[in-house]
Amino acid sequence: MKYYPLLRSHSAIETVILANGEYPSHPLPVGLLQQASFVVCCDGAADDYICRGNTPSIIIGDGDSISPENRERFKEILITSADQETNDQTKAVAYCLQQQRNHLLILGATGKREDHTLGNISLLMDYMHLGADVQMATDYGVFTPVQGDACFECVPGEQISLINFGATGIKGEGLVYPLSDFSNWWQGTLNQTTGDSFTIQAKGEYLIFRTY
Amino acid sequence: MKYYPLLRSHSAIETVILANGEYPSHPLPVGLLQQASFVVCCDGAADDYICRGNTPSIIIGDGDSISPENRERFKEILITSADQETNDQTKAVAYCLQQQRNHLLILGATGKREDHTLGNISLLMDYMHLGADVQMATDYGVFTPVQGDACFECVPGEQISLINFGATGIKGEGLVYPLSDFSNWWQGTLNQTTGDSFTIQAKGEYLIFRTY
Repeated sequence: MKYYPLLRSHSAIETVILANGEYPSHPLPVGLLQQASFVVCCDGAADDYICRGNTPSIIIGDGDSISPENRERFKEILITSADQETNDQTKAVAYCLQQQRNHLLILGATGKREDHTLGNISLLMDYMHLGADVQMATDYGVFTPVQGDACFECVPGEQISLINFGATGIKGEGLVYPLSDFSNWWQGTLNQTTGDSFTIQAKGEYLIFRTY
Repeated sequence: MKYYPLLRSHSAIETVILANGEYPSHPLPVGLLQQASFVVCCDGAADDYICRGNTPSIIIGDGDSISPENRERFKEILITSADQETNDQTKAVAYCLQQQRNHLLILGATGKREDHTLGNISLLMDYMHLGADVQMATDYGVFTPVQGDACFECVPGEQISLINFGATGIKGEGLVYPLSDFSNWWQGTLNQTTGDSFTIQAKGEYLIFRTY
């Protein structure tokens, strides 16, 4: 059974994708961004990252939201693509996978337009299909796309949510409220852990959100 | 075919539910909150509403996030319910429907914890089933739950997203990109209008997000 440890300030995550939502403010994503050795900025997110004194490893996107100054100054690390079928976050993930960077943390993907938030979160399922070992950390918690049975490290009494993407036979252990084959997103939200780990049994795919 | 006009500053919306997410800051939801004659605050949202000099019509929820001071001061309009099967937003909608208030605008439902955001947005589909004529306005746009064919007023060139909740045979007119029976949330995001209205043909249910 696959085991998902908690994301911690000393988790060694080399590759971070900084998406173009709200810039991280919680100490955990902020710290993980600082210690990453390879940071891919999605288009306009580069402006926020650069103005804080950082230099992106790569800037990727359709080039419509980065400032003209940074576009010129960082043109040698700027990969533009006008492909309208995918968004900048997906372009960044595809680039990382091409570079054999499969272990990815996405930051800054939520907190602005809610349709972007929904899109970016749901795309985690697609990235899992592409072979990425990916998580998304927000200012409130971490989203992990999962397939099949899995065990998750957690803090006792922490709130967790399960968003079902068509999985069946869903059962949980180590959670306060029972799970079932939820058909609407909200049904699996606001559960709570009882110990320092919980397990999910399921056929199919789902998303786990562990709050900090 | 049902017609959905744009939400405007002079839209006459009597009943507003103020959820416990981020307090509205965009002028449109702020203005609609000010002119509403009946404001139901979800638990802790009452604190934010009251500290801005307002008085809620009703405060509803499980009573765990409102301040002890306001809990005491407003005890005559406070309806507490510890039902763990529904969240405060849903309790507020159920209350309004009991009071024959079917035309509802939900504000402040997004912008904090992303699992709350996902839950609150998806619950719009359930409220539609209960007979509510409901929309959710955020700082970025308006979510409308829809069943079957519909026509939407819009600003030409505005971005819109369609989130599919199992609808089939989806077709659009008045949009830049073609629609299909999307299976993942992101697939219908970031479309664009071409004129001052667009129409959707579909069997089943979906959610439309019109940006401001």
